[in-house]
Amino acid sequence: MFKTIGCLLLLFVVAMAQSNAAQTGADPIRQTLTSAVRNVRLETWQVNSSQMPFKTASAWSIQKYVLHGGKQEGVDVIVLNSGKLTITVVPTRGMSVLRVESSELVLGWNSPVKEVVHPSLINLQNRGGLGWLEGFNEWMVRCGAEWAGHPGKDKFINNTGDEAEMDLTLHGRIGNIPASEVEVIIDRTPPHRLRIRGRVDERQFYGPKLELWTEVSTEPGSTTFRIEDTLTNYSAYEQEFELIYHANYGPPLLEKDSRFVGAVKRITPFNAHAAKSTASFAQYVAPTKGFVEQVYMIEPFADAQNQTTVMLHNAAGDKAVTMRYDITQLPYFTLWKNTTALEEGYVTGLEPGTSSPANRSIERKAGCLAKLKPNETRRFMIDVGLHTNKDEIARATAAIKALQGSQQMQVSAQPVKVE
Amino acid sequence: MFKTIGCLLLLFVVAMAQSNAAQTGADPIRQTLTSAVRNVRLETWQVNSSQMPFKTASAWSIQKYVLHGGKQEGVDVIVLNSGKLTITVVPTRGMSVLRVESSELVLGWNSPVKEVVHPSLINLQNRGGLGWLEGFNEWMVRCGAEWAGHPGKDKFINNTGDEAEMDLTLHGRIGNIPASEVEVIIDRTPPHRLRIRGRVDERQFYGPKLELWTEVSTEPGSTTFRIEDTLTNYSAYEQEFELIYHANYGPPLLEKDSRFVGAVKRITPFNAHAAKSTASFAQYVAPTKGFVEQVYMIEPFADAQNQTTVMLHNAAGDKAVTMRYDITQLPYFTLWKNTTALEEGYVTGLEPGTSSPANRSIERKAGCLAKLKPNETRRFMIDVGLHTNKDEIARATAAIKALQGSQQMQVSAQPVKVE
Amino acid sequence: MFKTIGCLLLLFVVAMAQSNAAQTGADPIRQTLTSAVRNVRLETWQVNSSQMPFKTASAWSIQKYVLHGGKQEGVDVIVLNSGKLTITVVPTRGMSVLRVESSELVLGWNSPVKEVVHPSLINLQNRGGLGWLEGFNEWMVRCGAEWAGHPGKDKFINNTGDEAEMDLTLHGRIGNIPASEVEVIIDRTPPHRLRIRGRVDERQFYGPKLELWTEVSTEPGSTTFRIEDTLTNYSAYEQEFELIYHANYGPPLLEKDSRFVGAVKRITPFNAHAAKSTASFAQYVAPTKGFVEQVYMIEPFADAQNQTTVMLHNAAGDKAVTMRYDITQLPYFTLWKNTTALEEGYVTGLEPGTSSPANRSIERKAGCLAKLKPNETRRFMIDVGLHTNKDEIARATAAIKALQGSQQMQVSAQPVKVE
Repeated sequence: MFKTIGCLLLLFVVAMAQSNAAQTGADPIRQTLTSAVRNVRLETWQVNSSQMPFKTASAWSIQKYVLHGGKQEGVDVIVLNSGKLTITVVPTRGMSVLRVESSELVLGWNSPVKEVVHPSLINLQNRGGLGWLEGFNEWMVRCGAEWAGHPGKDKFINNTGDEAEMDLTLHGRIGNIPASEVEVIIDRTPPHRLRIRGRVDERQFYGPKLELWTEVSTEPGSTTFRIEDTLTNYSAYEQEFELIYHANYGPPLLEKDSRFVGAVKRITPFNAHAAKSTASFAQYVAPTKGFVEQVYMIEPFADAQNQTTVMLHNAAGDKAVTMRYDITQLPYFTLWKNTTALEEGYVTGLEPGTSSPANRSIERKAGCLAKLKPNETRRFMIDVGLHTNKDEIARATAAIKALQGSQQMQVSAQPVKVE
Repeated sequence: MFKTIGCLLLLFVVAMAQSNAAQTGADPIRQTLTSAVRNVRLETWQVNSSQMPFKTASAWSIQKYVLHGGKQEGVDVIVLNSGKLTITVVPTRGMSVLRVESSELVLGWNSPVKEVVHPSLINLQNRGGLGWLEGFNEWMVRCGAEWAGHPGKDKFINNTGDEAEMDLTLHGRIGNIPASEVEVIIDRTPPHRLRIRGRVDERQFYGPKLELWTEVSTEPGSTTFRIEDTLTNYSAYEQEFELIYHANYGPPLLEKDSRFVGAVKRITPFNAHAAKSTASFAQYVAPTKGFVEQVYMIEPFADAQNQTTVMLHNAAGDKAVTMRYDITQLPYFTLWKNTTALEEGYVTGLEPGTSSPANRSIERKAGCLAKLKPNETRRFMIDVGLHTNKDEIARATAAIKALQGSQQMQVSAQPVKVE
Repeated sequence: MFKTIGCLLLLFVVAMAQSNAAQTGADPIRQTLTSAVRNVRLETWQVNSSQMPFKTASAWSIQKYVLHGGKQEGVDVIVLNSGKLTITVVPTRGMSVLRVESSELVLGWNSPVKEVVHPSLINLQNRGGLGWLEGFNEWMVRCGAEWAGHPGKDKFINNTGDEAEMDLTLHGRIGNIPASEVEVIIDRTPPHRLRIRGRVDERQFYGPKLELWTEVSTEPGSTTFRIEDTLTNYSAYEQEFELIYHANYGPPLLEKDSRFVGAVKRITPFNAHAAKSTASFAQYVAPTKGFVEQVYMIEPFADAQNQTTVMLHNAAGDKAVTMRYDITQLPYFTLWKNTTALEEGYVTGLEPGTSSPANRSIERKAGCLAKLKPNETRRFMIDVGLHTNKDEIARATAAIKALQGSQQMQVSAQPVKVE
């Protein structure tokens, strides 16, 4: 029923050899790192390409360890090094992606929050429902899943079947829930995809029964990676949900004259303050003390397969990130511009979502709230590319412009949130 | 001042042998598993009947271990196997009893909460004071001790001596407080009773000074077990308290046509919704999507020694649980019927308590709130029997009917909670 | 990137020898116990004077360990034994000082809270914002740093740049934040000062960027010790802050006819209740059931170097504590008299602070709220002396009386908090 914690590398390699003999060779290699069901948590574990019975273009490794000290005591971290990218995933914080690095580029930002804070030390209800900000420093944190937007009152059905009122907290709970199941999967067959998977549950009696399986994966030697999640409703009832992929960028991608590039069907400022600067929504300023966040809701154009691509590139146009995804999965895109002083967190968010980040009650009224039927599963996939080549970035820009074509961008004069 | 954590089995056996020599042989064997006072926490420990200097009818064992993964990381669990019953106690969650199993019967239910959630990850104030539901999956969880009922505002005396207002949270805090002292006691003398004891403190400056010593015990080979608790008020002042033994049953005891059997002096529906179905309070339906909980407050009849017995049996009448207790200790019995869809938690609660589960302010007004004088201790004892024999169940039914005799059940038309 | 946890004593000694050879001998010996930056946390560690390459007047030792059991599971503790004083520091609870003991005297009190409670089990928002009281049992706990006073609503600037309202909780957060960096420093040169240092961060996105470096230090054989802290604002903006050194005394210093001795320029009762007893503010009563706290705000006189001394001595005048500090650093002194029944916590607080313990909104209005400019650092230093000699205490009394001289104590008739 329970297992000794420790480095099981040797057992793993032996098991691999045995399974090699016994199997067809087509089944992927699987290693459980955490399992609440099987009562497992490996504190440390690692594997690398030299231990594999197959060769890959690049040497790669995957390493699991635990953070120590201060507010990060006991936080699990998994580092996947593809040979080109180093992707750091935090199972304890809802499988968030802390940082992605290549030799020339880093996806992430310099938050005033310096530690990877353990959820047991965060009270989401702090500061009028803004407690989430006490742990916010990831490149990508999922907001959701029962709700994903701004704090404030909303209704729910309580245990006595009555409509009651509760305080929603900023961006929901999923980013502060430890993953219950975590595993590494390595494909035996080319291109030998490397996957870190984790299941994060928002389950409660008289509440949601949502399970989110997350996956971050890449291939040895690749400069792109994929986020591929599935959300399932295990309730007997239909369940409202919201999911926002809150991907955050600081320098070097964000600087004076960096640009957002997207194929925009309609843009809506979040509030009157943002409405004043809608014309310059795609441009960025240098770190500016006193800058107040500007938030824009964007409906993008997509191709015949419903794929759209958004891009952020630096001033010189020689460093960029692209995010490609299906707009039927994630119809609402939020552009969050927070180009404040460096000390405060100079950052922009490119955030595909199932809804806008307004309070759930507003999204419900606007008809923008997604629902899952009992046992229904939805899939969400984002391909992220790191680019450090001018030609590549020019081609990506051209492809996005082609999505826009001659179609005009519509600007909603009316902000989402009327004050 | 502090001790190495580890398996102290060897030391334990040696100590036993030594104490055997030095003692009269009548003192029980004691093993501390956790002690905040002595700075001890054994992560793993086990003992079994073959290591004892005496023979018992059945082989038995007691095992302590720690849960890993997700929300249950670091949760302590003790499993007592009496040879007939397996009783799982969770020190980290207030000495709750997670599950009781025999070869033919299980006491417990299938909650949507799948993990044994660590209290550090639960905010009782969530969802308008319903955060308790995020960890609710035990066979028996104690509600209490400063309050045990529904959430809502109630008054208290603050540090400046003024009456202030606070938000009570559902079912109180005791089920989410780690036990400060945990020990196993094994009687050297027949019938060699096996006890798991734990002390859970609700102590705070300018607040309650309540200590609850809990005990779950059984005998080798027995199909009954006993819960025996004492609650002491270490304040200089009189202290209000509430304690409800929230014992929960799903299949196989709960199914279509299962029945509750009790000697009922008076029954009061909790609200207008429950009042509509008072006539069928003792019968159960199959899992029913959309079913809204029905709650009934029952004053039972008792024998000359103040003992009453309540029973839940399945449709066939060949599987049952009985709970026998003193109505002067636990005068208010709550029957909670929540025969909703399986995914939502198909469950019924048989809940002896010192009060009803209404908000403490309501109980106070109704004069149903118990108090402890300074240094006063109250004792609470429940004998639980597992029955898998028709004749035995028929005899138990007859005994309960004898308590009722020719006395009529009174039905209060007026619900406890007027809406 | 990460380090094995364990006793690194051997490495430490070797490192000392090496550094001795390589250095001038003047650099102090440093040992990191916790570092979030370097991913280090030593669970156990110890050092003592016999391992040093120098001799000291008294044998001394420093020991780090982890508490186990109940609510204190995983709490780090450091015990510094100077030969004369034993000082217990709790890194996990904001570097609070749990207790200071000499052979004849103890600084501390007997709180109803018996365990050293892990912050992950405390919800500061409990009981209408009084959750802090669930862990309150230290000799000295710092209140602060974003706010330090009574609970209640106050304004703040939220993410959208708007003024919003939040619930402040009693005495702020810093006492329940684990230290991110902890180190021991031992001076190689006489008088071989022994220091325990720790950094506690109140950092958050859209919130404070405060870092508090704390230090508790003494010399081998000394009966005095020093608290020396620095608070730095790493925000781009000016930051309000409050810091109160909540030092608490029970028996033997507190008893019937104990006395507070201070040079008082002005005294202001906190509320109408305290105002009734201002005349006897310096005297103490025996444990008194039903006693309601009396709180007085004191502006002390100081010498030409801005130093003031306050003292608490027992009835016989043969045991005393003195606290000496700079009134330009800590202009507001709070005297908290809580001479209630022993079970409830018979205690008095001598509390130098940057402000009074009223809600921050009141302090702001009164113009008593300190601010730090961007990158500004303030220093706070308190010298604490333990005295068990009548002559010594008489001399300290005379010195305090000299500060007062012929100057009259002014009494404010109007309490701080008008009800």
